[in-house]
Amino acid sequence: MKGQRKKEKTGGNSMDFFEHGGRNGGTNISYDFSANINPLGMPDAAARVLQREWKRAESYPEETSRTLCEAIARQWQAKEAQLVCTNGASELIYAAVRALKPAAGLILAPAFSEYERALLAADCPVRCFPLRRENGFQAEEGLLTFLEQQPSGSLLFLCNPNNPVGNCMDPKLSERVLRLTTRKKIWLAADETFLPFCRDYENISMKRFYRDYGNLLIINAFTKLYAMPGLRLGYGICADREVIRQIRRQLPAWNVSVPAQLAGLAALREEDYRERTIGYLDKARACLIEGLKKRDKLIYRIYPPCANFIFFEGVPGLDRLLAGKGFAIRSCENYRRLGPGDYRIAVRTGEENEALLQALDELEKEL
Amino acid sequence: MKGQRKKEKTGGNSMDFFEHGGRNGGTNISYDFSANINPLGMPDAAARVLQREWKRAESYPEETSRTLCEAIARQWQAKEAQLVCTNGASELIYAAVRALKPAAGLILAPAFSEYERALLAADCPVRCFPLRRENGFQAEEGLLTFLEQQPSGSLLFLCNPNNPVGNCMDPKLSERVLRLTTRKKIWLAADETFLPFCRDYENISMKRFYRDYGNLLIINAFTKLYAMPGLRLGYGICADREVIRQIRRQLPAWNVSVPAQLAGLAALREEDYRERTIGYLDKARACLIEGLKKRDKLIYRIYPPCANFIFFEGVPGLDRLLAGKGFAIRSCENYRRLGPGDYRIAVRTGEENEALLQALDELEKEL
Repeated sequence: MKGQRKKEKTGGNSMDFFEHGGRNGGTNISYDFSANINPLGMPDAAARVLQREWKRAESYPEETSRTLCEAIARQWQAKEAQLVCTNGASELIYAAVRALKPAAGLILAPAFSEYERALLAADCPVRCFPLRRENGFQAEEGLLTFLEQQPSGSLLFLCNPNNPVGNCMDPKLSERVLRLTTRKKIWLAADETFLPFCRDYENISMKRFYRDYGNLLIINAFTKLYAMPGLRLGYGICADREVIRQIRRQLPAWNVSVPAQLAGLAALREEDYRERTIGYLDKARACLIEGLKKRDKLIYRIYPPCANFIFFEGVPGLDRLLAGKGFAIRSCENYRRLGPGDYRIAVRTGEENEALLQALDELEKEL
Repeated sequence: MKGQRKKEKTGGNSMDFFEHGGRNGGTNISYDFSANINPLGMPDAAARVLQREWKRAESYPEETSRTLCEAIARQWQAKEAQLVCTNGASELIYAAVRALKPAAGLILAPAFSEYERALLAADCPVRCFPLRRENGFQAEEGLLTFLEQQPSGSLLFLCNPNNPVGNCMDPKLSERVLRLTTRKKIWLAADETFLPFCRDYENISMKRFYRDYGNLLIINAFTKLYAMPGLRLGYGICADREVIRQIRRQLPAWNVSVPAQLAGLAALREEDYRERTIGYLDKARACLIEGLKKRDKLIYRIYPPCANFIFFEGVPGLDRLLAGKGFAIRSCENYRRLGPGDYRIAVRTGEENEALLQALDELEKEL
């Protein structure tokens, strides 16, 4: 089961806006920097439960993941009816669009491509707020002006930290965005799947506000932090139970598998996992960035990252050159407003990061 | 992770049309007859791969399950582009409704409740063809008359063998239904998830026809035959690749998990599994039916089954009485056109079946 990508063409355009990372560099990949997964791997408790409890897959899962919803709800001091668990965050994105039936879907560009794909699948018009390269693809006050012009009943997807650029929105701006969307009766879906990797989580997350804003749906996932993308486990939280009820209505029965529910519950019990991950990442990311800066024949500009991945501009074709040496990195040229020479890499283990830097050295010598 | 059901109310009606089987008899259940799973359990090869390959869940699954689609396609002598793999057959039902955007959804009653739930979630009008108890809930020629009156662009869900009654449609009638839906430009979704349990599969399955009918979508799953409902793995096949492409468009990325893809591939390699299952079922089912017939103070009418489960009429409240003895059976009173006293049980292992019969004996004595 080697990584492969189904190319989905958008109209007559040969660009593929909807291709994702994850071992997409070809068949001889030894090092995968293209998927943004916790380099510490799955928590031990989750790994153990997968090995020991495989036989529970002979029974149906809980139909609405009640036990897991309750466990997550406790973390959030929320109620189970304010939570929904999904087959990855992707399923939640699709279900939210169908449940909220937005007048328009509002996205920033560049951003994670599933928002647009989900909106188009539901025949929802898409409006795009362009992020500017010269500003580091940082959202600015212009976003507020853009939102003022949108119809009530729209749905804004806000990815924070943004993927693939890896920057966080200024918390003061995100608060203003929330207030403005509330006043305009715009739904706000805040995708925070990478935010658990940020030390400053509590001050950045929309968690600060969710109790008071029924138009706010926070999207998160176990995929990245707990390194279980193969199990598919995302969740959404909204203070307004009717929103959650409508999202659940759009989900097929038994949408979250037994392994995902069991591993998710086990992961939640490893309370220091996030802290350990952040401690590791702080050092490894700084070290990797220092290394990348020195490879300046291949790498031109590194964007300051705030999560577990690094976005940079480099020599066009670098992904293919690295694939030839067994390294998959994420070419970002299929994102809106990005192009050849835009790349994303995950921060991996020290050994892997070192191997990548050595491969870059070899390529520089071959230039 | 005990079995539980989220009650979803339909309008002001307190009946729950959308409650499913599967350990729903309470917390002290030792024997689960409520879920229709192969009593032989998961094939060894699938069980082994779950135990050994758990670490592969640290990577993303193939985005569109290409390897697995290809393996299933070989079984069907079809092309990978004519196949779609889904997070259980349920996800396929939802995606098909969204992809085909039917003018109306046509269902038989009683039948598996997810068809109606998926249609309502997509705001699609539902038209219902009633099956008659006095005819053993067997579809008759009246179904053809009903279909003649439906608008083109409708979508008919045909569950064969039907769930929960467990009867097969006359193959001559199903062929006429197929031809009529084709002429009327009605989509036909043939849900054959229980058909692999029938010895006469080849003569009953719509597989006989699928190559020539682009309006025919065949739904199947690994859930029942390979006893892996906890992994969630269904698939659809249609000769018209555009239909498959549109269904895939409605599916979130990475919709089938790594454990499901790996176990599915492993299960397909156990080529005699179906044969062994049917050999076992023939004997066990006959034996169980004989036993049920003798408990005629509690069980009034047994419908001839053709799959791995048995539908019967019995004393109202039998499910609660049996739950008190540790047995979960499926009360079917929340199905359309069924009511208190209608039950479905799975054929389980010899030991379990014997235990059920003994429990019925005890209940008869207590009457």
